[in-house]
Amino acid sequence: MTAPRYDVLGIGNAIVDVLARAEDDFLVAQGMRKGAMALIDEARAESIYAAMGPAIEISGGSAANTIVGVASLGARAAFIGKVKDDALGKVFSHDIRAAGVGFATSPAADGPSTARCYVLVTPDGERTMNTYLGAAQHLRADDIDEAMVGDAAITYLEGYLWDPPEAKAAFKRAAQIAHAAGRRVALTLSDAFCVDRYRDEFIDLIRSGTVDIVLANEGELRSLYQTADFDSAVAELRADASLAVVTRSEQGCLVVTRDGTQAVPASTVERVVDTTGAGDLFAAGFLSGLARGRDHVTCAKLGALAAGEVIQHLGARPEVSLKALAAENGLSV
Amino acid sequence: MTAPRYDVLGIGNAIVDVLARAEDDFLVAQGMRKGAMALIDEARAESIYAAMGPAIEISGGSAANTIVGVASLGARAAFIGKVKDDALGKVFSHDIRAAGVGFATSPAADGPSTARCYVLVTPDGERTMNTYLGAAQHLRADDIDEAMVGDAAITYLEGYLWDPPEAKAAFKRAAQIAHAAGRRVALTLSDAFCVDRYRDEFIDLIRSGTVDIVLANEGELRSLYQTADFDSAVAELRADASLAVVTRSEQGCLVVTRDGTQAVPASTVERVVDTTGAGDLFAAGFLSGLARGRDHVTCAKLGALAAGEVIQHLGARPEVSLKALAAENGLSV
Repeated sequence: MTAPRYDVLGIGNAIVDVLARAEDDFLVAQGMRKGAMALIDEARAESIYAAMGPAIEISGGSAANTIVGVASLGARAAFIGKVKDDALGKVFSHDIRAAGVGFATSPAADGPSTARCYVLVTPDGERTMNTYLGAAQHLRADDIDEAMVGDAAITYLEGYLWDPPEAKAAFKRAAQIAHAAGRRVALTLSDAFCVDRYRDEFIDLIRSGTVDIVLANEGELRSLYQTADFDSAVAELRADASLAVVTRSEQGCLVVTRDGTQAVPASTVERVVDTTGAGDLFAAGFLSGLARGRDHVTCAKLGALAAGEVIQHLGARPEVSLKALAAENGLSV
Repeated sequence: MTAPRYDVLGIGNAIVDVLARAEDDFLVAQGMRKGAMALIDEARAESIYAAMGPAIEISGGSAANTIVGVASLGARAAFIGKVKDDALGKVFSHDIRAAGVGFATSPAADGPSTARCYVLVTPDGERTMNTYLGAAQHLRADDIDEAMVGDAAITYLEGYLWDPPEAKAAFKRAAQIAHAAGRRVALTLSDAFCVDRYRDEFIDLIRSGTVDIVLANEGELRSLYQTADFDSAVAELRADASLAVVTRSEQGCLVVTRDGTQAVPASTVERVVDTTGAGDLFAAGFLSGLARGRDHVTCAKLGALAAGEVIQHLGARPEVSLKALAAENGLSV
């Protein structure tokens, strides 16, 4: 096995975020579940957009945010995801390439437009998401670049890929190629309601070893094992996964292995502006470190640092060089 | 004369900003004049976009930013400007209406796409702008809504309107309608290089009384009167204009009338992140106060407050309610 060309390859929904501030009352009036991601159709997208305040457009997508974070940390990164050949598709493609990420998935020439996520940021910094999947639904198994997957130390998949039905096949094919090449596969559970939609399938992916590394937050983990008791959920995860990391917002994270669990604190931040991307950027730090052979605690510190940066401004992509930020904090990937 | 329906109506180029951080070296390599606005064609737009880093898309346009500031201050605001009926045109229209601004200019069905401004923000917070005018070039005299202009206490025009040739006629028609209705007309000189392109015409607009209120920064004023000496430029402005205000960044501003000049300090800000929109938002505060009959010093304080807010984050539109911010500072329009 030769040294991999990429440290982390992400596969996920290619989405442009349409981000606005909103009061809690707006979420209630619109029937939105605060902090969650809801899937919407085009008519609902139009109606939310018409009702929401002035917005900014900024490239997003969970795994895509992670991969941009990986590149910002100085690791080698690539992404596979589907846009349409339209204005927002060009924005997504420009932004991810300009961040130094290898991205070569061919855009859809027709069909629905590039995916958009309407993100409402409430005064407490929490984000509530409404996703119109559009072109992202048409990611197919034949979009998976075999050479790219075989040449990545870690292939990182988002749980959200279970929503567009055709993407499941792409997901499974990627995991197969990665393992055939002796590489590792990571999965983020993405969202508690996403877990609720696909619980049995996600547990099967973990138990069967289709994924080697699991990333989840507390809510997703509770949803996975349908328990309110955190400790028993962690115990179940320890039995099912060989390596997992559970993020707990300001309480830091827990690295979970067969040998035991290790707690790592969160970074201290001055002011939480927008939590969009916190989990995505934690994954960026953790997986970059892991791909480069760092110990689990260092990986978790890198994750905490990257997450701490992204929650201090609007948008889910880093605004500074995470490599420089890591160096200032005595860390490197 | 009845009470006006609008406090301030802005007429200007309808533009979406594509905003990215850049090092000074990038400006040098691209042959850009730091701090200035350059007009570019579509080919140059593509080439700058391909070279620049990850960006965010956020509605802009000088007079449009001002008008959104006017609405945020709680004054009644309207805007006239030309977009195309494309993705970015929809973004511009959504954002300005969602900010509470009356906007009814019909979008162009064909021709060039919605105007974009590639804004490069250097580490010192200074912005360098490259504008592809696109659809904004097709603002015509018949786009000027006579009832709207007649019903606005102040019609505010940007000097940049002199760049798209057809917009000049729209500009002049608006001034004519406003004066016929007994209203006032304000002009911003926009940019020192813009002044350089149209010096004699701008001086004529001021001397002839086509505009009643002039807004300029120090560089634009020096360019207008082709002098390095600030005091003699101010003396010339006093002779030519009945009311003017000259902004001087962190040195505050000077209100200039036939009776004399009054200096008003800038707001204190914690950290300058991005100066895009500083002049636009100063104009928002100053004109809102003026339209509501506030004294000149109060108008200048409102301007300083609004400018101080917008330079503390990315983008040229306020992120908080300026009305609430003004109230916290003992001010109101």
